[in-house]
Amino acid sequence: MALNLSKLPRTITVEKRGGVPVVRMIDQRLLPYDEAYIETSDWRSVVDAIKTLALRGAPAIGVAGAAAVMLRAWEPFSSDSQESLDEAADQIAAARPTAVNLAWGVDRAMRIVADLQVAGEGPVAVAEALFSLCQGMIAEDEAVNRAIGRNGAALLPPGCTVLTHCNAGSLATAFYGTALGVVYAAAEEGKLRRVYADETRPVGQGARLTVWELSHAGVPVTLICDNMAASVMGAGKVDAVVVGADRIAANGDVANKIGTLGVAVLARHFGIPFYIAAPRSTIDTGTATGSDIVIEQRDSAEVLPRPIEGVEVENPAFDVTPAELVSAIITETGVFRPAQLQDALS
Amino acid sequence: MALNLSKLPRTITVEKRGGVPVVRMIDQRLLPYDEAYIETSDWRSVVDAIKTLALRGAPAIGVAGAAAVMLRAWEPFSSDSQESLDEAADQIAAARPTAVNLAWGVDRAMRIVADLQVAGEGPVAVAEALFSLCQGMIAEDEAVNRAIGRNGAALLPPGCTVLTHCNAGSLATAFYGTALGVVYAAAEEGKLRRVYADETRPVGQGARLTVWELSHAGVPVTLICDNMAASVMGAGKVDAVVVGADRIAANGDVANKIGTLGVAVLARHFGIPFYIAAPRSTIDTGTATGSDIVIEQRDSAEVLPRPIEGVEVENPAFDVTPAELVSAIITETGVFRPAQLQDALS
Repeated sequence: MALNLSKLPRTITVEKRGGVPVVRMIDQRLLPYDEAYIETSDWRSVVDAIKTLALRGAPAIGVAGAAAVMLRAWEPFSSDSQESLDEAADQIAAARPTAVNLAWGVDRAMRIVADLQVAGEGPVAVAEALFSLCQGMIAEDEAVNRAIGRNGAALLPPGCTVLTHCNAGSLATAFYGTALGVVYAAAEEGKLRRVYADETRPVGQGARLTVWELSHAGVPVTLICDNMAASVMGAGKVDAVVVGADRIAANGDVANKIGTLGVAVLARHFGIPFYIAAPRSTIDTGTATGSDIVIEQRDSAEVLPRPIEGVEVENPAFDVTPAELVSAIITETGVFRPAQLQDALS
Repeated sequence: MALNLSKLPRTITVEKRGGVPVVRMIDQRLLPYDEAYIETSDWRSVVDAIKTLALRGAPAIGVAGAAAVMLRAWEPFSSDSQESLDEAADQIAAARPTAVNLAWGVDRAMRIVADLQVAGEGPVAVAEALFSLCQGMIAEDEAVNRAIGRNGAALLPPGCTVLTHCNAGSLATAFYGTALGVVYAAAEEGKLRRVYADETRPVGQGARLTVWELSHAGVPVTLICDNMAASVMGAGKVDAVVVGADRIAANGDVANKIGTLGVAVLARHFGIPFYIAAPRSTIDTGTATGSDIVIEQRDSAEVLPRPIEGVEVENPAFDVTPAELVSAIITETGVFRPAQLQDALS
């Protein structure tokens, strides 16, 4: 195994060209066969990228939410009122409902707007401050993920094989990843044997993204269909399950990509530890339990591209894994049992 | 719900045209969008249909195995020796390894060959007897499935919602189905509310076949991705799981389509009964436990059509569900707990 993280792309960056901020995002709809980038100075294009899953992953869309607010703040100041920035922020935060990080990123940007306005700063200073915020959030996200990785790798045995679901990888973050951050850290420590990646129907984040980034980075990876996880676990091939999270309720219930609940139940049945790897920004203390989390329902065409008369389709994008099935939540500040979460955060 | 089973096609039939036997099979690779039939008098084409999954389903390939032997026996008698019929039988039985019914169907045909030869009958009489056998097996299969259906429907509560995996439907049998035979019988008794059909990656027997035949027959059906079963069960939407079987070991362990084990674990976790519906011909008393069952590994291209460098793929076609996760095995002669199986059959 020749681990080489420098081969991983930056998922989202912000830079200035001719004094104008540009947000650059890898278009994940085209992976694994084409590596292309969206570059835009229009906040609406960032919202579209979030809605169409060109950019996805809770931490990445947190950064993108702030970046969209930033681009809106850079639009010609004369033509807009403050209400319009607020309205844009509302639209950005509503681009997808389940991941808490999106609203968190937008809120972070809007708090800076409010603070600077209270301080009497004008729109140029606000726009510049938001640009700096985005650069800072990107650097911070990588640092957070590297800390999550170290904390998680410490839980894994030598020669470990990890099963993961969806893509909580570098592509789901600014860089390095959460669940796959744990994988990369374990690989850097020489502890990782292999990753089993669930393909993660219907969008295929595992088949398209996880296997692409792991193989790019030199991590041995085996792709399986979601329904093969039980067989692989039953054969004793999996030492730990590590997945990400889109929202963690105060009681430790976890909303994550559809199928996560099933993997958690299987892990419990087969006596395999089931870990959530996520930044503290994913923990939503304002949500008491998983039953309070809004689950996004997506288009049935993702499951059945050509309808069949008389056939209904359900397509929830997420499910909720109850805290009692979660062995531990791995964050940048430490590893917590779900029941400890509230104490640990207060 | 307007139940109308007459809209279901006959999966496999045998008839004579100009004195020559013709095997007619619906080409299941083209469903759900095209309904086309393979008609052949060449035993090798039947073997190809089994290998390529044009015809699939344990009971259906049991009939097809006998039909292939029958076609071989009808080939010009002068040019062939008995060894050649034996060789053909071996090739037919080896077309797919996991379902016991295929070998059972071939054996049934070859026993008739042996019996008639011992009785001094010539090749014409043998060929005619095999033709009659195939017609009889088709009628018998439907009768068996209707009995399985009645026995299984008696286990279901009124207003029942059933989750099924793969296609153990009319399309997997000569007619009516095993797991879906239970569904059809429950629908005929007015007890069925809805079926949830797992899409069943990678081949999509649920998405292509189960939803097609159920909607064709007027049964309310909702298609879900395999990884949504946990979420649907956790929401209390499923009253019973009913699936088929490719081979049942003497101890009650069940080999069935990949993903069945996961569904069984989920059903246990959520307190939902998990039923196997299968003809007695699926029970292989010569196989002591599930660990003795050969699991067919299929081409990785089924999972990942275009390879990605450095990405491995596993593609087992079946898994083994241990007897302790099986609530009951529904057969044409009654309903058995797995532990009772050996006594019930002896």
